[in-house]
Amino acid sequence: MNRFTNLLSNWNNKPQYIVGIMTGTSLDGIDTALCRLQTIDNSITIELCHFMCSEYPTTMKENIVTLLNEPAPISMYSHIHHELSRVYAQCIRDLCTKSKYDMNSISAIGIHGQTLWHDPRQKNCTLQAGNGEVLAKILSIPVVSDFRSADVALGGTGAPLVPIFDKEYFSSDTDTNIAINIGGMANITVLPPRDSQTPIVACDTGPGNVLIDALCMKYYNIPFDNNGEYARNGFIIHEMLQELKSHLFYRTPLPKSTGREFFGQDYADYLCKTYANYPPNDLIRTVTELTAWHITDHIARLSNNPGTMIVAGGGKHNLFLMKRLKENMPQLSLCSSESFGINSDAKEAMCFAYLCYRTLSGLPSNIPSVTGASREAILGSISLP
Amino acid sequence: MNRFTNLLSNWNNKPQYIVGIMTGTSLDGIDTALCRLQTIDNSITIELCHFMCSEYPTTMKENIVTLLNEPAPISMYSHIHHELSRVYAQCIRDLCTKSKYDMNSISAIGIHGQTLWHDPRQKNCTLQAGNGEVLAKILSIPVVSDFRSADVALGGTGAPLVPIFDKEYFSSDTDTNIAINIGGMANITVLPPRDSQTPIVACDTGPGNVLIDALCMKYYNIPFDNNGEYARNGFIIHEMLQELKSHLFYRTPLPKSTGREFFGQDYADYLCKTYANYPPNDLIRTVTELTAWHITDHIARLSNNPGTMIVAGGGKHNLFLMKRLKENMPQLSLCSSESFGINSDAKEAMCFAYLCYRTLSGLPSNIPSVTGASREAILGSISLP
Repeated sequence: MNRFTNLLSNWNNKPQYIVGIMTGTSLDGIDTALCRLQTIDNSITIELCHFMCSEYPTTMKENIVTLLNEPAPISMYSHIHHELSRVYAQCIRDLCTKSKYDMNSISAIGIHGQTLWHDPRQKNCTLQAGNGEVLAKILSIPVVSDFRSADVALGGTGAPLVPIFDKEYFSSDTDTNIAINIGGMANITVLPPRDSQTPIVACDTGPGNVLIDALCMKYYNIPFDNNGEYARNGFIIHEMLQELKSHLFYRTPLPKSTGREFFGQDYADYLCKTYANYPPNDLIRTVTELTAWHITDHIARLSNNPGTMIVAGGGKHNLFLMKRLKENMPQLSLCSSESFGINSDAKEAMCFAYLCYRTLSGLPSNIPSVTGASREAILGSISLP
Repeated sequence: MNRFTNLLSNWNNKPQYIVGIMTGTSLDGIDTALCRLQTIDNSITIELCHFMCSEYPTTMKENIVTLLNEPAPISMYSHIHHELSRVYAQCIRDLCTKSKYDMNSISAIGIHGQTLWHDPRQKNCTLQAGNGEVLAKILSIPVVSDFRSADVALGGTGAPLVPIFDKEYFSSDTDTNIAINIGGMANITVLPPRDSQTPIVACDTGPGNVLIDALCMKYYNIPFDNNGEYARNGFIIHEMLQELKSHLFYRTPLPKSTGREFFGQDYADYLCKTYANYPPNDLIRTVTELTAWHITDHIARLSNNPGTMIVAGGGKHNLFLMKRLKENMPQLSLCSSESFGINSDAKEAMCFAYLCYRTLSGLPSNIPSVTGASREAILGSISLP
């Protein structure tokens, strides 16, 4: 590609141990995955060695919430940007201690960082906290960070970045598979058969667990619907479902992504108030129905003859939601990403180990048909040890 | 050093054209230097090909001032972080147009960025605006950015970074030379003879031009003392000089650095008010005297038998200040950096081209004896094209 392509000699000749760290917008924890990657016959194999989810330190979480919600002195961002890297460093030390893995064998670390701003359309920018230089220097391990800015600089949405990972691990030779991730929001990647010329498309489809979780917390003081039991015991409120489906986002053309700005606590509060006369389980059932609907509705619109729906993310554990997905799309198979060798809880953290490996192999990772960027690009800034 | 050391094959075999961009805390402009660098016999040669100083776009300057001075939404920083890279990109395009230089021949770009926060002691952090990923992707040229975080992460002050440049270009085989930079603040690097075991020391010594410029603006509406003529025609106000010299900073032990927090407009306003009965030229003379004093006083304290004082920065044009430096230190030679082949106005921008070259050569650039860092480190985050 250019003279920087093979910047790491011998990199691809043997397995590399890479740590991926994911911290999502929900601030629910820090996912750390140690993976073994290797390039074999132009494919990149990945194997999860260890996975750990850590709590955010309370003060840091509070400071991040402040930065997200109100004007703050720039020193506060500067502080969090550095300090978060120290938290990441501790997560990696903990993971190595628990798994008795020698930190010196880690080849590199890929960090998503904590998103503090993402608005590629209006202000053409994206910002993650977590400084690669700081992490690389305190652990003496190379770090790749800031994966989204490159795509945004090239006119893309900077998200989603997971489709290149989905392509590598969930594509079929013959079918159009659908990778589904159900986290706070839900997103899908439509993967044409491996040698097809059809471009990959991907997008957020709407709220994943965020509304279900908010209602469970409000009515039962429990953070999620265990196995989907509340929803299973409720009835659809048709008037409410109609209202939910009328949200403009579902009809917005691609590329599109969404977040708690649209589907957050405020939206959940509004629903509780408006439909206060119904039993809690009916509300939970209805928002669960919504999630199943917008996922399968987008699949139907974006894909002609899909093969298998491959689910990852916390929503995978909601068995009632899984049942509804399958019932909405009886012609498709449904399985979790484990069937393709990918731990569904660790998927996002593994993805950032994979993206890190690609960057240090000199490979691009954004998909212009997904993000709208003007070209492919090697993503992320490299900090040497 | 490690397997990343020679990450760019053939990099050192031929001359590389590197752009360095410096934007100082005074927000007085964007310095862009295109340099030719080459490694010959373990030395790095540097030659300035083109130099340009551009104005800051007004809105960007206003937004930066806001970020520096008051709480602001995080979106504002995110926006400036990206947008400043677009301004840098335009500076490089302009420089190539003016000099008829082919942009495709530029090997890499090193950016200092705009410092928005620097407090290594209290909050252990430093923050520069200007995103390397954005600049690298829109120009398709590798970029090195965020040079200070690494040293701060290792317990250092993250500043000054220029001593490694001073060592390369201003050291003598036999004498202890002193590199002096007189910008808004003044700093010195004490350079022992080349093969000496004596460590390099360096520090800010106090206000450089900042007070002189502020008084010239107030009394004459002129941004600086041309050739030092106002000072030459004034008399020292001894009471004022005594007060100035009593500032705690001059006695603070190393490592130390200072800025407009201590010696800014407020300080200048205070002096004008307190010594309002004296003629303007006497005040200008007195602060000029102060600058000459603290520079030579620090030299006397930090160096036993210095050889030559080598001056760069805007203060070099203040001929009266130069005269006073020489009179304070009659035993030392005095010359401008031009005598050593370095354009004194372009020095700082050239320094970031040099630091960029070192990083991409896998060489460390901080000097632990200067910053207090626990070890040497390769500085800056690398963004590929």
